Amino acid sequence: MSETISLGTYFFERVKQAGVHSIFGVPGDFNLALLDHIKEVDGLKWIGNANELNAGYEADGYARVNGFSCIVTTFGVGELSAVNAIAGAYAEHIPLIHVVGMPSVSATQKKLLLHHTLGDKKFDDFLNMSRPISGKSYAIQHLDSAPKHIDDLIETAILTKRPVYLGFPSNFYDEQVPKSLLTDYKLQLTPPVNDRLVEAEFIENVLKLVESSKQPIILVDACVSRHNATEEVLELAKLTKFPVFTTPMGKSSFGEDHEEFYGHYIGALSAPDVKEVVETSDCVISLGGLLSDYNTGSFSYSYSTRNVVEFHSNYCMFKSAIYDNISMKGALRSLITTLASSGLSFERKLSPPSSKDAYKSAQVCPPGILTQDYLWKRLSYFLKPKDILVAETGTSSFGILGTHLPNNAKAISQVLWGSIGFSLPAAVGAAFAAEDSRKFLSEDVRRTILFIGDGSIQLTVQAISDACRWNLKPYIFILNNNGYTIEKLIHGPYEGYNNIQPWRHQLLLDLFADQIEYKNYTVKTCSELNELFNCEKFQTPDKIRVIELFLEEFDAPESLKKQAALSEKINAA
Amino acid sequence: MSETISLGTYFFERVKQAGVHSIFGVPGDFNLALLDHIKEVDGLKWIGNANELNAGYEADGYARVNGFSCIVTTFGVGELSAVNAIAGAYAEHIPLIHVVGMPSVSATQKKLLLHHTLGDKKFDDFLNMSRPISGKSYAIQHLDSAPKHIDDLIETAILTKRPVYLGFPSNFYDEQVPKSLLTDYKLQLTPPVNDRLVEAEFIENVLKLVESSKQPIILVDACVSRHNATEEVLELAKLTKFPVFTTPMGKSSFGEDHEEFYGHYIGALSAPDVKEVVETSDCVISLGGLLSDYNTGSFSYSYSTRNVVEFHSNYCMFKSAIYDNISMKGALRSLITTLASSGLSFERKLSPPSSKDAYKSAQVCPPGILTQDYLWKRLSYFLKPKDILVAETGTSSFGILGTHLPNNAKAISQVLWGSIGFSLPAAVGAAFAAEDSRKFLSEDVRRTILFIGDGSIQLTVQAISDACRWNLKPYIFILNNNGYTIEKLIHGPYEGYNNIQPWRHQLLLDLFADQIEYKNYTVKTCSELNELFNCEKFQTPDKIRVIELFLEEFDAPESLKKQAALSEKINAA
Repeated sequence: MSETISLGTYFFERVKQAGVHSIFGVPGDFNLALLDHIKEVDGLKWIGNANELNAGYEADGYARVNGFSCIVTTFGVGELSAVNAIAGAYAEHIPLIHVVGMPSVSATQKKLLLHHTLGDKKFDDFLNMSRPISGKSYAIQHLDSAPKHIDDLIETAILTKRPVYLGFPSNFYDEQVPKSLLTDYKLQLTPPVNDRLVEAEFIENVLKLVESSKQPIILVDACVSRHNATEEVLELAKLTKFPVFTTPMGKSSFGEDHEEFYGHYIGALSAPDVKEVVETSDCVISLGGLLSDYNTGSFSYSYSTRNVVEFHSNYCMFKSAIYDNISMKGALRSLITTLASSGLSFERKLSPPSSKDAYKSAQVCPPGILTQDYLWKRLSYFLKPKDILVAETGTSSFGILGTHLPNNAKAISQVLWGSIGFSLPAAVGAAFAAEDSRKFLSEDVRRTILFIGDGSIQLTVQAISDACRWNLKPYIFILNNNGYTIEKLIHGPYEGYNNIQPWRHQLLLDLFADQIEYKNYTVKTCSELNELFNCEKFQTPDKIRVIELFLEEFDAPESLKKQAALSEKINAA
Repeated sequence: MSETISLGTYFFERVKQAGVHSIFGVPGDFNLALLDHIKEVDGLKWIGNANELNAGYEADGYARVNGFSCIVTTFGVGELSAVNAIAGAYAEHIPLIHVVGMPSVSATQKKLLLHHTLGDKKFDDFLNMSRPISGKSYAIQHLDSAPKHIDDLIETAILTKRPVYLGFPSNFYDEQVPKSLLTDYKLQLTPPVNDRLVEAEFIENVLKLVESSKQPIILVDACVSRHNATEEVLELAKLTKFPVFTTPMGKSSFGEDHEEFYGHYIGALSAPDVKEVVETSDCVISLGGLLSDYNTGSFSYSYSTRNVVEFHSNYCMFKSAIYDNISMKGALRSLITTLASSGLSFERKLSPPSSKDAYKSAQVCPPGILTQDYLWKRLSYFLKPKDILVAETGTSSFGILGTHLPNNAKAISQVLWGSIGFSLPAAVGAAFAAEDSRKFLSEDVRRTILFIGDGSIQLTVQAISDACRWNLKPYIFILNNNGYTIEKLIHGPYEGYNNIQPWRHQLLLDLFADQIEYKNYTVKTCSELNELFNCEKFQTPDKIRVIELFLEEFDAPESLKKQAALSEKINAA
C-alpha cells in the first residue's frame, strides 16, 4: 500500500518545488480548508493580505524577484478583486499561479444558489473570465487527473512566463493521492532545447550580418530578464564589446556599471547621442523586445528593420524571416559559442555617449527646493548592488531612466500594463522574495526601495499593513506633488479630476505598524535629500521607512513630458 | 441647421436624465477628455475616488438609494479593478452604468501595442470579460448609432436592475451629435404594462387560493425594493392584514413598525414562532424572492411549494405554473384591485410572534463588556426613520436581523454576493445619494450608519478618504473583534489565516480628513454604548465619525453561528 497525501498538500508541495516560500492571498470560506495544508509543507508560509488586489500585485513583485509565485483567493468575490493584478502579470510576462477556492463539485452539480455567485446557478463564469488573462485556466473535475493538471499549470506558468488559473473545488482539498507522484515526476521548469538545424541556420545568418557590419549594437528589452537570459547577454557583450542599450522595460537587465552599457534607447525620447548610435547601426541585435508605446517613445523607433535580428522567448527573427520555436536563451548561447570560435576579433569602436554620465551632475547639490532632476540623479549614489528599485507608473517610472543603477541592482516598473497603485504592493512582494532568499538560500540582505506618487499610493495603501505584519523593511518614498502629475501632463493640467484628497502620509506607519520599529521622514529641499542619502544609519535597512518628498506639481522628468504629448495625440486621433 | 452637442456631453446628459448627480470613478489617460464633459452638465459632479473597486462599490451604494448610478474607469487597468464591484451589482440586481474610456478607434484599427493592453494587440478582451457580469455590454463603433446605444444601455440597466457596460473610445468624446436627440426621445425607464389576459389568469388563480386558505402570509424578499414595489406591498398588507415576513435580503423593504410586520424568515435559522407560522401557512405570497444560501438558512425553507405563489420582476408563478413576462409591480397592483373589489373581508387572525419583540430587552442596559446581543438590539433605539443602515457581510449582516428598524429606514447588505469590504464604500455611496437628494430634491437629511468589522475594513479603507473629500458625515462603527470572526466560525477558529494585522483605527480620520470636522470614539462596555446612543449631540450627523467597538473574538449573533455550521457542511460535501 503506497503512502498518500491530500491533494491540498500535493498542490503546495509542488508550488514549493517551483521555488515558492510565501503564499499570498485572502481567506474566504471556500478556500479556508485549503489553507490548512500550507502548514503541512516545510518552509512554506501564508502571508495573509489586507485585500486581493494587493495580494495579486505582491505575487507579481515576488515572482519578478523569485521567478514564480502563488496567490490564493476565494470564488467570485476574491478572485475578481485580483483580476487587474493577474492581467498585469499576463501583459508583463510574470509567472504565477492563481488558485481559487471553489464551491464543491456536489454543490455545483446540484446548482445551489450559493453566496459569492452571480445568482444564476452557473459556476464557470469566473473561470471563463480568467482565460484572456491567463496562460492556461483549469478547474479540477476529477481527483485522478488533478495532480497532472496541477503540474501542467505550474510548468506552463514558468515556461511561458504567464499567470495560470487553477479552480480548486473545496471537496478535493482533503482527498488523497499517492505521495510518490511528487518524486516520480520532476517538474519540467527549463525550456526545451532548440531544434539544432533551425537554430544553426538562424545563427549562421546572424554571424554573417555581424561579420559584415561596421557598428553592431545590442538592445536589451523586457523579456531578457523574464526569460532568464541576463547572463548570456552579459557574456555576449563582454565577448563582442558591442555597445549595449536598454529600453525602459529592459532597465537593470544589463548592469549599468559595465563599460559596454551605453544608455537607454526610447526612440524619439532617447538622448540625442544615444538615438544617433542606435539608429545609424547597421546591425541591431534586439533581445526580448516588447515594443509597447511607453517602451518605445510611442513607436518612434527609427532604425531600419533591414538591419535587425530579434531574439524572443519562443521565436527568433532575422530581418523579416521568422524562426519559430527557437528560444532566446539557447540561441544566445549558440551565438556566443559561434562568435567565440569564429576567429573574429572585436574591439570597442565608439566611445560611450556623454548622456550616459548625465547623472553625475548630482555630485554637486544645488540649493533650493527638491527637483525631479536632482532626485533621480542623486539616487544613483544611494543605490547599492542587489538593491531592488521599484518605480510607480508616473514621474517615478520615467524618473529612474535618469538614475544610474549599480550592477546587479534590479529595477521593477510596470511599463506596459501601467496600472497605478501597482508599485507599492509589488515592492512589498519583492521584499518578501528577498527575505525568503536570505532565509532559505542564505543570500545577502537586499534593500527594497520604492518610489510612488501621492495619487498612486491611494489605490493600494493597505499593502503597507502587509509589510508591517511581517516586519519587512522597505524604503517607501512618497512623491507628494499634489495629485496625478502624469495625467496633468497628458490632459487637463488644471482640471479637478486630476486632483486628489490630501493625506497625512506621516501617519501611515502609525496606523499600520504594530510592535515593530519604523520611522518617518520629510524632505523638501535638495540638500535635505542629499543629507538623508549620505546618512549611514539611513542606508541600513533595519526598519520600515516612509520618506515623504515634497515636489512641485508640474515638475517632471523631460522624457515624461515628451511622452505625455505623444500620448494625448494618439488618444484624440 | 440643428444645434449639436458632443457625444461626451450627450452621454452625461442622459445619465442625469436617469437621476444621477454624482459620477464615480478614477481618471486615466484614456478617459480624461471624457471627464471634461461632466462640468458641461448642470448639477452633475465628478467624485474622484481613491481607487476603482471603491468607486464601483460606491456606485452600487448610490444606486441602492438613488435608483441608478454611473462609474467611469479607464481601459484595462481601471475597469478590471472594478470588476468585483460590478459583478456584485449584477448578482444583487443593482442598476448602474460602467463607462470605460477606451483607446481611439484608429489606435485599435492600427493594432498599436498600447499601454494598459495585454500586449496582444487585441482590444475586445475586457469587453468580453464584462459580458457575464453585465446586463448588456457594448463598445461604441460608429458615431451615428452611438446615442441610440447609450439610451439602450441606460434603459436596460434601469429596467432589468443590472449593471451595463459601455466602451467609449477616446476619439468620440468631442464628436458632435444633434442636441435634439435629448428631447425628441424620452428614456423609457418604467417597465412595460403586463399582458392583461395573462395577468388576469394569474391573479384569478391567486384570488382562489387566498379565498380558500386559512392563514395566508406575505414573504418579502430582495427584489421588492429593487423593482420599486414597496408601496404595492404595503398597500396589499394593509388591505389584507396578512402577516408580513421579510428575508435577510428583504430587510427594510417592509416597515417594521407596521402591525402587519411579523419578523424575519430565514428557514431553519428563523425564530421558532416565526418558522411555525410561515411553514404551516396554506398560502405563501412570495414577493421578489431570491433564494440564496445566506438568504434562506442554507436552503432550509420548509413550506410546501403547493401553497406558494411567486411574484418576480419579469415573471410570476402559481404553484408550478409559470406566467412569463408578467411583472411583480403590475401584478401586485392588479391583485390589490381584485382583492379590494372581491367582497372578501380580512381580519387579523394571529397575534404577532413574541420573537418580534426580542429587541426590547435592550431597554435595560446590562453590566459588563459590550456584547453582540446588546449591540444589535440597542441599535433599534438609536435608529430613526429614513436612516440608511449599512451592514458588512459577517457579524454585522447577521446582527442587524436582530435590530428593529423604524419605518422608512433602509438596510443595505450584500447578502448574496457577500464580498467583504463592500459595506464601507457602499455606505459612502449611499451617503452621496442622500446628500444629492437633499440638495436637488429638497429631501430631509438622512443619516448613513455603517457597521463593519476590523477585517473587512482593511480591504477598502480608502473609501473613508472619498467621504472626507466631500465632507460627508456617515457614522462608521468598526467592530474590533480581532480578525475574521465569521470565517473563524465556519472553519479554522484558531488558525493564523483568520487573523489580521491590528490597525490603530483611531488614526483613520487623522490620516484621511483634511480641513473638515471629525470625531473618534471607542466603546468597550454596554453602558458606554448606551450612553453614546443616548447622547443628543451624537445623534446629530454633523460630522464624520469613527466609533470603534471592542467585542469578544468569538461573540457572534446566534443566526450566524448556525449559518456557519451549515456552510461548512456544504463546502466539504
